[in-house]
Amino acid sequence: MKFAKTLFLMLAVSLGATAAEVASPNGHVKLKFYTDDDGRPTYELFYKDRPVVLPSRLGLELARDKHASKGGEEHDLLDHFSIVDEQTDTIDETWQPVWGESRDIRNHYVEYAATLLQQWKQPRVTAGNGQRGMYEEPHQRSIVIRFRVYDEGIGLRYEFPQQPELNYFLIQEERTEFSMTGDHTAWWLPGDYDSQEQETQESKLSEIRSRMDHAVNWGNSSVAPFSPTGVQTSLQMKTQDGLYINIHEAACADYATMHLELVDEQTKAFTTELRGGSNEYTPAPKPSRAKLPRPYTFVSHLTPDATGLKGCMQTPCTTPWRTVMVSDDARDMLSSNLILNLNEPCAIDDTSWIHPTKYCGVWWEMIVGKSSWNYTDQFPSIHLDRIDWTKVKPNGRHAANNEKVKRYIDFAAKNGLDQVLVEGWNVGWEDWANMWKRDVFDFVTPYPDFDLKMLNDYAHSKGVKLLMHHETSSSTQNYERHLEQAFQLMNDYGYDAVKTGYVGDIIPRGDHHYSQSMNNHYLHVVKEAAKHHIMVNAHEATRPTGLCRTWPNMVGNESARGTEYEAFGGSRPDHTCILPFTRLQGGPMDYTPGIFVTRLNTWSGNQSWARITLAGSLALYLTMYSPLQMAADLPEHYERFDDAFQFIRDVACDWDESIYLEAEPADYITVARKAKGTPNWFIGGKCDENGHEAIVKLDFLDKGRKYECTIYQDAPDAHYETNPQAYVITKKTVKAGQTLKLKEAPGGGFAVSLIAL
Amino acid sequence: MKFAKTLFLMLAVSLGATAAEVASPNGHVKLKFYTDDDGRPTYELFYKDRPVVLPSRLGLELARDKHASKGGEEHDLLDHFSIVDEQTDTIDETWQPVWGESRDIRNHYVEYAATLLQQWKQPRVTAGNGQRGMYEEPHQRSIVIRFRVYDEGIGLRYEFPQQPELNYFLIQEERTEFSMTGDHTAWWLPGDYDSQEQETQESKLSEIRSRMDHAVNWGNSSVAPFSPTGVQTSLQMKTQDGLYINIHEAACADYATMHLELVDEQTKAFTTELRGGSNEYTPAPKPSRAKLPRPYTFVSHLTPDATGLKGCMQTPCTTPWRTVMVSDDARDMLSSNLILNLNEPCAIDDTSWIHPTKYCGVWWEMIVGKSSWNYTDQFPSIHLDRIDWTKVKPNGRHAANNEKVKRYIDFAAKNGLDQVLVEGWNVGWEDWANMWKRDVFDFVTPYPDFDLKMLNDYAHSKGVKLLMHHETSSSTQNYERHLEQAFQLMNDYGYDAVKTGYVGDIIPRGDHHYSQSMNNHYLHVVKEAAKHHIMVNAHEATRPTGLCRTWPNMVGNESARGTEYEAFGGSRPDHTCILPFTRLQGGPMDYTPGIFVTRLNTWSGNQSWARITLAGSLALYLTMYSPLQMAADLPEHYERFDDAFQFIRDVACDWDESIYLEAEPADYITVARKAKGTPNWFIGGKCDENGHEAIVKLDFLDKGRKYECTIYQDAPDAHYETNPQAYVITKKTVKAGQTLKLKEAPGGGFAVSLIAL
Repeated sequence: MKFAKTLFLMLAVSLGATAAEVASPNGHVKLKFYTDDDGRPTYELFYKDRPVVLPSRLGLELARDKHASKGGEEHDLLDHFSIVDEQTDTIDETWQPVWGESRDIRNHYVEYAATLLQQWKQPRVTAGNGQRGMYEEPHQRSIVIRFRVYDEGIGLRYEFPQQPELNYFLIQEERTEFSMTGDHTAWWLPGDYDSQEQETQESKLSEIRSRMDHAVNWGNSSVAPFSPTGVQTSLQMKTQDGLYINIHEAACADYATMHLELVDEQTKAFTTELRGGSNEYTPAPKPSRAKLPRPYTFVSHLTPDATGLKGCMQTPCTTPWRTVMVSDDARDMLSSNLILNLNEPCAIDDTSWIHPTKYCGVWWEMIVGKSSWNYTDQFPSIHLDRIDWTKVKPNGRHAANNEKVKRYIDFAAKNGLDQVLVEGWNVGWEDWANMWKRDVFDFVTPYPDFDLKMLNDYAHSKGVKLLMHHETSSSTQNYERHLEQAFQLMNDYGYDAVKTGYVGDIIPRGDHHYSQSMNNHYLHVVKEAAKHHIMVNAHEATRPTGLCRTWPNMVGNESARGTEYEAFGGSRPDHTCILPFTRLQGGPMDYTPGIFVTRLNTWSGNQSWARITLAGSLALYLTMYSPLQMAADLPEHYERFDDAFQFIRDVACDWDESIYLEAEPADYITVARKAKGTPNWFIGGKCDENGHEAIVKLDFLDKGRKYECTIYQDAPDAHYETNPQAYVITKKTVKAGQTLKLKEAPGGGFAVSLIAL
Repeated sequence: MKFAKTLFLMLAVSLGATAAEVASPNGHVKLKFYTDDDGRPTYELFYKDRPVVLPSRLGLELARDKHASKGGEEHDLLDHFSIVDEQTDTIDETWQPVWGESRDIRNHYVEYAATLLQQWKQPRVTAGNGQRGMYEEPHQRSIVIRFRVYDEGIGLRYEFPQQPELNYFLIQEERTEFSMTGDHTAWWLPGDYDSQEQETQESKLSEIRSRMDHAVNWGNSSVAPFSPTGVQTSLQMKTQDGLYINIHEAACADYATMHLELVDEQTKAFTTELRGGSNEYTPAPKPSRAKLPRPYTFVSHLTPDATGLKGCMQTPCTTPWRTVMVSDDARDMLSSNLILNLNEPCAIDDTSWIHPTKYCGVWWEMIVGKSSWNYTDQFPSIHLDRIDWTKVKPNGRHAANNEKVKRYIDFAAKNGLDQVLVEGWNVGWEDWANMWKRDVFDFVTPYPDFDLKMLNDYAHSKGVKLLMHHETSSSTQNYERHLEQAFQLMNDYGYDAVKTGYVGDIIPRGDHHYSQSMNNHYLHVVKEAAKHHIMVNAHEATRPTGLCRTWPNMVGNESARGTEYEAFGGSRPDHTCILPFTRLQGGPMDYTPGIFVTRLNTWSGNQSWARITLAGSLALYLTMYSPLQMAADLPEHYERFDDAFQFIRDVACDWDESIYLEAEPADYITVARKAKGTPNWFIGGKCDENGHEAIVKLDFLDKGRKYECTIYQDAPDAHYETNPQAYVITKKTVKAGQTLKLKEAPGGGFAVSLIAL
């Protein structure tokens, strides 16, 4: 049930003169808003009266377009603004997500919306009565800047009402500033338009520039930063006096993904990649007219399209919300629902077909290189329409074959897993990646050793579903052409979930994974899937911004460095203690945890190894919240450690309540969650390379009830590098008020199940 | 019935030493082919032993791609070639088009295919046994260059077999040369990637550069030439000694449309617009490594994609055919089937649903500005998904309303026209053009005053069909997303033909109308339409290259300056005496002839006027061959000149035979055609602003048969400007052997029907 309470606050403001001040419901977060001497909209943010964001300007630079412009330069939405109206409101409502970390989510904030009038004069030549002259033509436009002030931060967005002088416009750059108070520690990724699969860098803000080379060259995902101080969001920071600050965005739909460019002491100008066009259809580049802010200021930098432009807009419209979360308790960064709250309510009427899912899959053995997605090695390249697959020579390494898939189905059925992902089932994997090959897959034709009907029938007979896989190879036009048929095939055979992939460069060439058009594409696929009652888990797509509230069939995304990198050289042990602060802010990640056999060369030719203990792997099912959880390792590896695998069998993936007990970015996270619709709790703790001792007070348990407590814990001599499979399983009966002390090994963790007796 | 005769010619060639010489079946056209001192494939062309193409080199520059390249520079396909194999063959076959200028088309040519081996060495660093060194790594690739030598010209293409060192490649530029022998007269359009709706320029080759500004600024279609000497194909030329030469291309599918860049005395370097990328995903530009040829040489210039690249290729594959037609008789330029012959046979098994069509439409009154496509003027812009169309305020000018459409249906039924085109029937026209608006139309929702079911039922009850209209506004992604539903709606309501439109800039931004991806799009639409038994008539799409042989449901294209320009300032009187030599080489044009009331201000506020006499308008139904012929003027205008309209009622639009009786580019064209499956003939003559007297010998008529001859002719005082509606209709009985002398007024023409008695 929702309710809204409207409350008009008394503002310490007289229009255009002094600043509006807006406090969050509990008063911890305070916002100031005003226009500066140039008429630039400016805000400041405080937490418990300590400055968090110093005076920061808001606005957009527009690009001239031969069509949209009436002639002359396009006037930016930067300055000459005055506040002409202000509205304040308090909302307190509670909503229920279809799936999530808690059953109820409270959305409690104070809203402040300023209507800003921009007035300017533009020289214009007149001709009439035989005389030519110049006059200053007056213009005006209005925009709204809306803030929502929560106890743990703010959202702000630009709104563009429909009006004669603002109907269509092209964005050259958004210039939203986030001016930091000092040289904070930041956990950042290099700002790239197509990839966010790098290791996170931890550095002072002042060190971003000098560390960029390292950031680019460390790890094994190609990265091309747009600026030497360009970083991605969500960006987690910590101040020297212990404030945690996070910058991200919410509800980014049909708008380019936002990056941040840090202005530091060496910044001479903004990075602008608006390209010169080959003809009049492409606007000429223009130097930024936005003034550089003070150092330690992040400025928004949107992902460009193929011509370098950032957005094509039609009023009435809004930008996504720009979010700043702040607290003196790191746990608030994880428990906040600010980003989900800033998204629109669920747009799907009947959500009964959407469900959390635990799955295994024919995947890891291909990732490590032991078997192949492709069926044949016979051809240097293939044309889908010219091959008779029944006549080609198999390479003998094709994983998605009937026998193997049945083995996985049996395993899933036996262990209560809901679905089996099968990658490499459909023709086209022979030369699928990075060839600028448009017609790369058709999404409906199986390889000859994959019997679509038989395998689905077999799975269904055992209470298991297959999980569809659509690798698009980033040939989005090709995917959209086949989308309807592909989803229809899924309906025909009983699939209800698809993992999509966007590996490689976008086709059409020149576009980027995080551009406005691609963000539209990802959501288009989700909406089309909803029509077919299909859940979507998109890999390599844009980073989430909470759209899963509106479209809860978007059950997962990758959009970060996932478990696969443990087979591509490995990820640092603290990686999973950072992701919940950064990547997971916008929505769940299909991290594909559960690697029990970390030394891959013990069963394959792969020399990589996963930097995690077995108990740590179990912890991820709690610390990396997702309604979609994979048991990623091979069935035979789980069978080898069946007592530990019991936790994966038992753990829920949908929750009534979640309590973050301990948290520090890149160090440790401890969380307790109550399984939805049950009295049972599960606790997970994960730490970095230094180990950790978690102190877990069981005061969240039902009073007067006993629980069977099973603890899966690193053995005393466990270590992610030298002794990862050393774990201890302990069972005991516990009750509310007791405390568990749980030692986590370097790169380790623990998992606890508490089954109500 | 087809037959092929294989004949191995004796070639005056020993491999790699002297040139191969290949003569056409009648010996008039001769080709020489060899590799020059740099190993560049080179050809020469002769007509009746006079040089037509001087030594001209063939090859392609490739772009480096991070994926496709094994490291180092991508080696071009330009030089270091040697001929390692030659195959010659003679083909003489006859095929029947589904529709066309004649029932049978003879395809008679001598084929010559040279296999060329390219060998080169590339420096490579070695590291082994603790030692580093450099060595010259040997490489080799082979390509085939195939010529087909016809009596009226040649086709040549590049073929790329699949091989280890040529699997995928990126084209930076194709460098096919056409080296002219002198300063020919040319009829040319400025080379633009998106428009070919300019007036044709007539000039010497040496004057192209100086006339480019005029070419760009004359007329009213925006044009952005890629080079000061860049022109489009088909390019018609005439030499000082009376040879007619035409350069175009055939079978351009999934390849960028070819333009030509003239190398003249002032050319310092090729025009290259490969753009610097904003990141590593875009190949760096590289200066052309192709040497400049001698002046008066045209060099191919392909349409780029958004990043400036010209093509993404996967072997085995070929380029389109590059064609050079030549004759000392201008009529051969018009009667040649060389371009159709170079296309693949029909790909549609059942073509029974494809038919020539005569139509009228709700169109001209909107073009002149008297009524509107859009239904309302209420909003500055519209979002399709936010408007309740039943509640908006109509502007009172919406043409596609029930009453008017019924009037057109009645008119079509009464006059034996097959279909009625209705533009502006579907929602979205309020702000459809040039707004970078992706979701501009949905192609299925009619305006409230257009009753889709009633109007189709009404039409069908009278033996008429409606002709669907899909303006895409060049938002191709949006069109592809709606394509299946849009075609399904057509099937549901009984439409079997669609006029598509591509006005404005391509979305995705940065792409061009004539790029590889757009050429793929147009053909994708045609193929999807074929599945629905729908004929396609695409406006503003790429210029045709004979693909209608393979896909005969592609019944029309615009791709040139059509009749609409008579309402946009007018076209020169010689325009329609040029188009058959240029634009129509690749396939029929939906020119929409038949304007009887040329002074538009007599019935609308439009001050433009059509530069043609009424009799000249009738001639266009013969001289501008198309299986799709519109009677474009208003029903009331035809009713006013009902005796002349009789010719439009009578004229066929599918033919057993066509005989070009007279022709001179930009001066006059006279053609006689025999209506398919009948003994009846129709003759049309059209001339430029100077008038013309046609001498028509009726020796093509059946001997011993009499014909009722109706002549629609300019009156003696007729003139396209001062007296366009002065015409005389004469009836008499004629027989074979007689001669008609037919005087055509300035900007005039004549039409004759010969009905067998």
